[in-house]
Amino acid sequence: MTTPVRALLFDVFGTVVDWRTCVSAEIQSMAKNYGVDVDAPAMADAWRAEYQPAMEEIRQEKRPFEILDVLHRENLERILPRFGLDEMRKDDREKLNLCWHRLQGWPDSTEGLIALKRRFILATQSNGNIALIVNMAKGANLAWDVVLGAEVTGYYKPRPEAYDRACAQLGLPNEACMMVAAHNDDLLAARQQGMRTAFVCRPKEHGSSQTKDLEPASNWDYVADSFTDLASQLKC
Amino acid sequence: MTTPVRALLFDVFGTVVDWRTCVSAEIQSMAKNYGVDVDAPAMADAWRAEYQPAMEEIRQEKRPFEILDVLHRENLERILPRFGLDEMRKDDREKLNLCWHRLQGWPDSTEGLIALKRRFILATQSNGNIALIVNMAKGANLAWDVVLGAEVTGYYKPRPEAYDRACAQLGLPNEACMMVAAHNDDLLAARQQGMRTAFVCRPKEHGSSQTKDLEPASNWDYVADSFTDLASQLKC
Repeated sequence: MTTPVRALLFDVFGTVVDWRTCVSAEIQSMAKNYGVDVDAPAMADAWRAEYQPAMEEIRQEKRPFEILDVLHRENLERILPRFGLDEMRKDDREKLNLCWHRLQGWPDSTEGLIALKRRFILATQSNGNIALIVNMAKGANLAWDVVLGAEVTGYYKPRPEAYDRACAQLGLPNEACMMVAAHNDDLLAARQQGMRTAFVCRPKEHGSSQTKDLEPASNWDYVADSFTDLASQLKC
Repeated sequence: MTTPVRALLFDVFGTVVDWRTCVSAEIQSMAKNYGVDVDAPAMADAWRAEYQPAMEEIRQEKRPFEILDVLHRENLERILPRFGLDEMRKDDREKLNLCWHRLQGWPDSTEGLIALKRRFILATQSNGNIALIVNMAKGANLAWDVVLGAEVTGYYKPRPEAYDRACAQLGLPNEACMMVAAHNDDLLAARQQGMRTAFVCRPKEHGSSQTKDLEPASNWDYVADSFTDLASQLKC
């Protein structure tokens, strides 16, 4: 007999929220204050491109755990000169850094989560820190039951401990937990730990010329094109 | 200028949920299955009486951190013989132990939290572990934004680190966080760390002959007799 799924664990950046559009808009607005003409989506992409290498040092234990707000801030410092924004004041850098707390959901995110919440425990399983995820949830109306992820487990995905500890913290066997993500690599890592998997396609995460994660790369347990679609498939 | 309060951090056992009534009912029902006539409220009180000493060993670092489910289970083992229930099977002990996940709120808890959630981040700051708090929230309809507390901070209240870390995890200065509790000692410890304080009187937590925490023991920032009263005082 198959273990029933009790909890859905969500990747957040890209899966729940449209980081590229929101970060670009905040960059655009900030650059305008400094009279700098910036390619805002390119700068958002450049900022995001520093994300995996920064976490990788921690995953490989070359550096002790730091929350994502700290990594985002270091990464911002790294890219500002490349976009002609090295004059930006410290308070503005701090303000811009927190734009990751102000991301908005995809059009189906709020409604889909409310539907899914009727039948399942909804947990975030993100590399974002607690404050980031909580502030985002308040601003974007995301009805989480519990914030898990990097700061709570102490590990960045796709370290296996990140998945194992999140399920254990819910008091559930891994097979009673389903990872929901727009990224095939996240689902693969979750499946390797015995979790169930749901792929929700987000074809505009990286803009209109996205080439990655346009299709499920494996026979994931569920494949959906929105959270409302997923809710319907899960009979919520 | 006073820092505005951004987050409310709630003590849970006694403040949000009526542990004594719920635990007594589950004890009563379980004892009946074994044909044992038990004083269920006395056994609930005895179980709860083991709670502080068990955590105290961890607070004093005589023992590494363990989640409350584990301590509750050990404490149950300790008291069962005293109530003539040493014949209880292991699976029933495990089931009874999880009664702490099934506690119900006071009559105003659900409605009061929904009102408070409009203006504030609502966090649990309980000695309960994550799974316990999440399962309770699903069963008792408690609209938390985030589960903090012992398992997330790594410290049992009233260790100062428990309060400091919870506020830091929300990315907020302690003075922007208000501890909400029915227990004067919890509020005192929170105030010593610079948090704001709200006393919500729960005169039946220990049954009808309660003598403790019937009045605020200090000039707490707010004093209320329910969460709906607190919401009204906070203009939610």
